[in-house]
Amino acid sequence: VPVIENGVNSDTVPYSDGELLQKVLDIVKKEKLYGKIEDDKSVVDFKHPEELRKLLDLTMCREGCQSRAEVDEVLERVVRHSVRTQHPHFYNQLYGGIDEVGLAGAWILEALNTNQHTYEVGPALVITEFCVIEQMVKLFGWTDGGDGIFCPGGSIANMYSMVLARHKLNPAFKRTGMTANDSPLVIFTSDQSHYSISKGAFWLGFGLDNVVPVASDDQGIMHGAALRDAVRKAREEGKKPFYVNATAGTTVFGAYDNFNEIADVCKEEGLWMHVDACWGGAVVLSTKHKSLMDGSGRADSISWNPHKMLCAPLQCSMFLTKHRGLLHEANCVGATYLFQQDKFYDVSYDTGDKSIQCGRKGDALKLWLMFKIHGMDVIELRINAAFEASKYLESEVKRREGFELVREGLQCTNVCFWYIPPALRGHTRTPQWWQMLHKVAPLIKERLVLEGTLLIGYQPMTGKNLVNFFRMINTSFPVPTQAHMNFVLDEIERRGQDIEVQSLES
Amino acid sequence: VPVIENGVNSDTVPYSDGELLQKVLDIVKKEKLYGKIEDDKSVVDFKHPEELRKLLDLTMCREGCQSRAEVDEVLERVVRHSVRTQHPHFYNQLYGGIDEVGLAGAWILEALNTNQHTYEVGPALVITEFCVIEQMVKLFGWTDGGDGIFCPGGSIANMYSMVLARHKLNPAFKRTGMTANDSPLVIFTSDQSHYSISKGAFWLGFGLDNVVPVASDDQGIMHGAALRDAVRKAREEGKKPFYVNATAGTTVFGAYDNFNEIADVCKEEGLWMHVDACWGGAVVLSTKHKSLMDGSGRADSISWNPHKMLCAPLQCSMFLTKHRGLLHEANCVGATYLFQQDKFYDVSYDTGDKSIQCGRKGDALKLWLMFKIHGMDVIELRINAAFEASKYLESEVKRREGFELVREGLQCTNVCFWYIPPALRGHTRTPQWWQMLHKVAPLIKERLVLEGTLLIGYQPMTGKNLVNFFRMINTSFPVPTQAHMNFVLDEIERRGQDIEVQSLES
Ligand SMILES: Cc1ncc(COP(=O)(O)O)c(C=O)c1O
Ligand SMILES: Cc1ncc(COP(=O)(O)O)c(C=O)c1O
Repeated sequence: VPVIENGVNSDTVPYSDGELLQKVLDIVKKEKLYGKIEDDKSVVDFKHPEELRKLLDLTMCREGCQSRAEVDEVLERVVRHSVRTQHPHFYNQLYGGIDEVGLAGAWILEALNTNQHTYEVGPALVITEFCVIEQMVKLFGWTDGGDGIFCPGGSIANMYSMVLARHKLNPAFKRTGMTANDSPLVIFTSDQSHYSISKGAFWLGFGLDNVVPVASDDQGIMHGAALRDAVRKAREEGKKPFYVNATAGTTVFGAYDNFNEIADVCKEEGLWMHVDACWGGAVVLSTKHKSLMDGSGRADSISWNPHKMLCAPLQCSMFLTKHRGLLHEANCVGATYLFQQDKFYDVSYDTGDKSIQCGRKGDALKLWLMFKIHGMDVIELRINAAFEASKYLESEVKRREGFELVREGLQCTNVCFWYIPPALRGHTRTPQWWQMLHKVAPLIKERLVLEGTLLIGYQPMTGKNLVNFFRMINTSFPVPTQAHMNFVLDEIERRGQDIEVQSLES
Repeated sequence: VPVIENGVNSDTVPYSDGELLQKVLDIVKKEKLYGKIEDDKSVVDFKHPEELRKLLDLTMCREGCQSRAEVDEVLERVVRHSVRTQHPHFYNQLYGGIDEVGLAGAWILEALNTNQHTYEVGPALVITEFCVIEQMVKLFGWTDGGDGIFCPGGSIANMYSMVLARHKLNPAFKRTGMTANDSPLVIFTSDQSHYSISKGAFWLGFGLDNVVPVASDDQGIMHGAALRDAVRKAREEGKKPFYVNATAGTTVFGAYDNFNEIADVCKEEGLWMHVDACWGGAVVLSTKHKSLMDGSGRADSISWNPHKMLCAPLQCSMFLTKHRGLLHEANCVGATYLFQQDKFYDVSYDTGDKSIQCGRKGDALKLWLMFKIHGMDVIELRINAAFEASKYLESEVKRREGFELVREGLQCTNVCFWYIPPALRGHTRTPQWWQMLHKVAPLIKERLVLEGTLLIGYQPMTGKNLVNFFRMINTSFPVPTQAHMNFVLDEIERRGQDIEVQSLES
């Protein structure tokens, strides 16, 4: 039993001052977890859940670890059994590597261990958030300024947009709740938009029935015309349209909706326009690609996840709005134990009451440090490199036998394609054939994961009648190259070329 | 302009492999940010917001930092201008220090840079979350098991409870939204409960008018009788009671509501019972104090923030429920790009669809490492020490001249008291006198902050007709001692004894 006496903290951990953190650094350096993992290392050493439960030795005891070796082993085990998302060949999600500057920022933030609900406990965090939001409001095209807040993820950022739109429509809802409303409020979003719009809709009391999926075109783009029809139809049904979500970089196809057309409709119809730029918003930092965001400055709000394409450490996610003061108005309750008005400093810096959280991490710091230390030129070059790699990949998919693009015409860095094994080539594409192709991607994925050479996502898209296909995406760090793209296709081919028809029938 | 060629990542930062992270470690060690700051160092070097804006040198350029010295200065500046929450004399909030094990866990988690929405990207994170939730479900008294999820803070954990209660009441709301409901759903919570209950209520569409504040007793405890009356009254008004929030450790007084009485009412009336144990829940880890939670096992859900009393790194917050499967049912939408059912491993480990977030940090890992490395005995001793320090403080407040308890009878580690400067002693306590006393705490706080010796919170409590008083709380690390408690009172006296009546009149 450890002893705690006279303020001397018991320390059963057999490490002296700072040595445990040094151990963490040693592990991180050895494993090169800041985006410097060599290409030929494995991305994952896959274990099935039940096996991993045993390997991690989950038992927790009254005594704790008794030796350095024991502590080291616990830490090393966690890292060993984690996926190397920092690996150049981790393409499974819309996030991935972080660089050393990003990780340094994350570590500083963790070491500060404070919130930013009030200036008095997080002064540097509050100020850097102000600074980053000021910059981003400008870059997204709101020349008259705006406001914003960092959130624990884009899903919650998207919820902020719905709450603000509702409050703008009728501030009484904050008091009365939705039950007091006579006709349901309706949300419009493309059939390609992220599922967080649906989740937000039922959490916040709107209901899934009141989320109208607007048809997208072949590329996954939502246009003003389809939206206009959907809005009119909802009005005819006696419902109350109030909010449109447009997407800048859809999750699967990477489509950018037509923001100017959508803004026109929102203006005509008096609807709140939100742009979910969680994935594709990073292009505002690139002169070459920022035109993809044309019209975003006409939106009422935007959400953007720098932890995705920009490779800021998870989480780094922001909600922005052009309506100054509305975040506070919509969310404040004025808790007196935290937001006392008789403090001796300027309490307008106590921004916590505009948040739905009480305690809130200072995620802006990580982004600010990246901007500050790297400079914006490096950030821009990296983003451009991600787009170039995807362009190259698209051309290779078109060129190589057995590979087929799901859609031509790259918008974001998403490249969606099928791999057709030799056994399926040259056949008539009957429904049965497509059902067999549907099984190819999961099979190849399984083999790749078990070998650990490459992690890539796949999915069907039933709305567009598409069977399982691969979705390759590039983020900006580690900077993707042509060699990386070739490797992806080579690996898929290597693990897929021997797939027999029998293994696809069931 | 940096060069990116052939996959060689540009690195404008003049550091080679791992050196920047070493620099971070050096700063953290020098500043002893893992709870080893000496008592006589200052807690904060206060700068007003506008001044700090200049000191932080917020400008972001195209070029970035050009030398090591520049990078070092940026990092050191952020730390220099942050509050030392790890300082033994930081008592301003319900969180504070973290120890080296906690910080090591946080750093590992940051370095892993992954989500835990699916097993395939966060295997170790998913498994450790399972393990911690299993343990905590038992400790909170649900012998038949349960379910849970880590959340970005207790406010969001509390929202989960409302969403689950609503879904249990009528799963159709998920589809129809709240507008389809005829009579408003009503939430009951004590007048001492945390403001996140109100925030959750309007976010989720219930509305502030439908949050009924239940009267608490003198100690801040909500009893079954007051709740029963409030529920009946709401029914008489044609409203639909459905949810009760009880608090385990209220934010200001530290009161534990009477869970058994409340459970009786909830059973009789068919209401969901939630226990907000964000602050006081840590007592389940202490044999000596766990009886404070008696009856919590009869609740439907519980939220607990290990980042508060237990001193896990921010954020570490969990939502627990005894209803297995309900989290998933209430929150799922089945996104096919993430939760494919044709994966080759057991997809019941893809727990992401029970979350309202898409990407989600693996905060459980930090808590699991603390339990595993320290062992539960150390954790328990630390919690007990926090309670002992508070008990001592309470007795000193009673004993010392000029100090006065707001309420006698400590429940949690909160000690609320006034300091009455000599100039105000021995007077009749007229309304004017109380108004003068109201100004004392903010004045002393200002002086303490400007000197940087001690950070402590204060607030009024208008509902109980109480003017500004100090709220001292103890967390479990750095382990608080009698010497620390004496210092708090000495400092308040030192900075408060010369306050003149003039400076309190306005
Ligand atoms: C377009 C889009 N919006 C929102 C989100 C949700 O972001 P988060 O995972 O941070 O909640 C995602 C996640 O992939 C996304 O692709
Ligand atoms: C009783 C109680 N519940 C909930 C919360 C909210 O927790 P968080 O800050 O993690 O949102 C707090 C915060 O102080 C609290 O004291």
